[in-house]
Amino acid sequence: MNESTSIEEMIEVLRKASTVALFSHVSPDGDCVGSMLAIGLALEKMGKEVSFFNPEPLPSYLMFLPGSSRIRQDLPSPQKEILMFVDCTDLQRVNLSMSEISPESIVLNLDHHISNQFFGHFNWVDAQASASAEIALILINQLGVEIDRDMATNLYTAIVTDTGCFQYSNTTAQTHRLTAELLEVGLDLAGIHHNIFDQKPLAQIKLLEYALKGLEISVDGQLAVMILSLEDFRECGAEQELSEGLVNHARSIAGVEVAVLLKEVGSQEIKAGLRSNLWLNVNEIAAQFGGGGHKRAAGCTLKLPMVEAKQSITTAIEEALKIGRNH
Amino acid sequence: MNESTSIEEMIEVLRKASTVALFSHVSPDGDCVGSMLAIGLALEKMGKEVSFFNPEPLPSYLMFLPGSSRIRQDLPSPQKEILMFVDCTDLQRVNLSMSEISPESIVLNLDHHISNQFFGHFNWVDAQASASAEIALILINQLGVEIDRDMATNLYTAIVTDTGCFQYSNTTAQTHRLTAELLEVGLDLAGIHHNIFDQKPLAQIKLLEYALKGLEISVDGQLAVMILSLEDFRECGAEQELSEGLVNHARSIAGVEVAVLLKEVGSQEIKAGLRSNLWLNVNEIAAQFGGGGHKRAAGCTLKLPMVEAKQSITTAIEEALKIGRNH
Repeated sequence: MNESTSIEEMIEVLRKASTVALFSHVSPDGDCVGSMLAIGLALEKMGKEVSFFNPEPLPSYLMFLPGSSRIRQDLPSPQKEILMFVDCTDLQRVNLSMSEISPESIVLNLDHHISNQFFGHFNWVDAQASASAEIALILINQLGVEIDRDMATNLYTAIVTDTGCFQYSNTTAQTHRLTAELLEVGLDLAGIHHNIFDQKPLAQIKLLEYALKGLEISVDGQLAVMILSLEDFRECGAEQELSEGLVNHARSIAGVEVAVLLKEVGSQEIKAGLRSNLWLNVNEIAAQFGGGGHKRAAGCTLKLPMVEAKQSITTAIEEALKIGRNH
Repeated sequence: MNESTSIEEMIEVLRKASTVALFSHVSPDGDCVGSMLAIGLALEKMGKEVSFFNPEPLPSYLMFLPGSSRIRQDLPSPQKEILMFVDCTDLQRVNLSMSEISPESIVLNLDHHISNQFFGHFNWVDAQASASAEIALILINQLGVEIDRDMATNLYTAIVTDTGCFQYSNTTAQTHRLTAELLEVGLDLAGIHHNIFDQKPLAQIKLLEYALKGLEISVDGQLAVMILSLEDFRECGAEQELSEGLVNHARSIAGVEVAVLLKEVGSQEIKAGLRSNLWLNVNEIAAQFGGGGHKRAAGCTLKLPMVEAKQSITTAIEEALKIGRNH
């Protein structure tokens, strides 16, 4: 039954409950944590006993969120009347299986992912929402709780992180209208943005320097390729995941249509991250090497030495660029 | 008479006119150009004859704006009934003096700068607005013109550029509410953001590489200093102004409170750009060297060789950091 519960039903269940456990997903991000905290703080204002769960420790850039120190990594015991899952497509996202859930508990599922599995007794899923925080704000409003600064800080952070500061195409008129409500409460915009965006590890900045050092532009300025070797990562003292997002520096150069970051992850094993700006389908390029993704962002792994991997992927992109956008 | 005209008066003047010349300021930016174009396109929809003026050519990142190709660098002749200045604090901002203005023309002044000189016959100045585009949208609404995609693209670009993508503290609830109206028209968010933010000259990316190469962190990770020599600029093929904003890469490192970019602009002449994150008043640091600015962003020029300039400014910042935030 892939259908959302009526909003009124979920509101009624929450009104009646006196204990609620809130859950957010692995690899915690701004939306799952911020939305969960805001809902929990609102339920507490209604006099309910609330607990917060995430299977993993929070990344440091989210530790400023009001209420974040209360998030636990062990399951609340005894189990609460209501188990509410926020921003989770399914129970695996919280490292739980149905058998771990007390049969007496009512499961609520609030999410904005189109792939949501409707695993709750009550499900409120809106794939049009840019972030679960949009649904969370509507929920809090409907519960009749006045949004305070702590809740607003949580929800604003959730929206900003899931929309890339209102830049991604998931941003809608409703996103901005709801954000206006949050700003009305009075937010420390500079402080929030500093916490979210200005906490880059030094190793990441070093990695950017190394990536730029090897930057090569070709195909009349349309292709930009960057390379990071295992040795580069070692010298920078950087873990693999710190290279996340670096490819966008190459993508942002005027005239570039495709940007590639090739990183060595093992002996004869190269991971390629591909991004395009306006028209080239990098999903098709990645598919040629057994990878995939989306039209404008895709990836693949090549079991080759760096020089050959670079040659192969450059040739494939060059051909696609030559066939051109009128293909 | 530093008082805004009643909005109704300006609306009435515009309704009656049949020819309107619109003006925007030197160093054209997204707000002055986008707001001017949107107002002009709206007035045309009302059947008026409209011309657009800017004293300088547009930067390439604004050339995608609908109507931008119609902006002229020579004054409209014969002069129009109405001369409307958008986002200009005074007439010098358009390289004009009062004597160049026909005495029969009515001068309208629409702006959001607190320093506006109220030079028009009718002035609509709102320093609470994040961008002149907020006032422009209210004006167009009040004129009874339905916002179309071209107007919305212009106004959205204006707001995004003046608020740093809704990050600066000038962003208000009204900013988001008006932006929601624009998104309702249907905008190509990805395309607009690509045009505004992904047009970096290759030389600028090279300059970033050079700046990162010399990055030094000191005072327990609180101070980050980057250096660019005249030779660096030459090797990158970069003009001085391309270093604009690079200091933010140093500012965004976790733990950093103050970031400095020292650039050699001549023999024994070093320009220092200073940024702070949370508490240090860099205006006071810059003032020690005859410069100034704001608490979180300031600059000064040191007539010294690079090594000594770096030593002087580092010492000053180190002392301020040691005195600490409880000073």
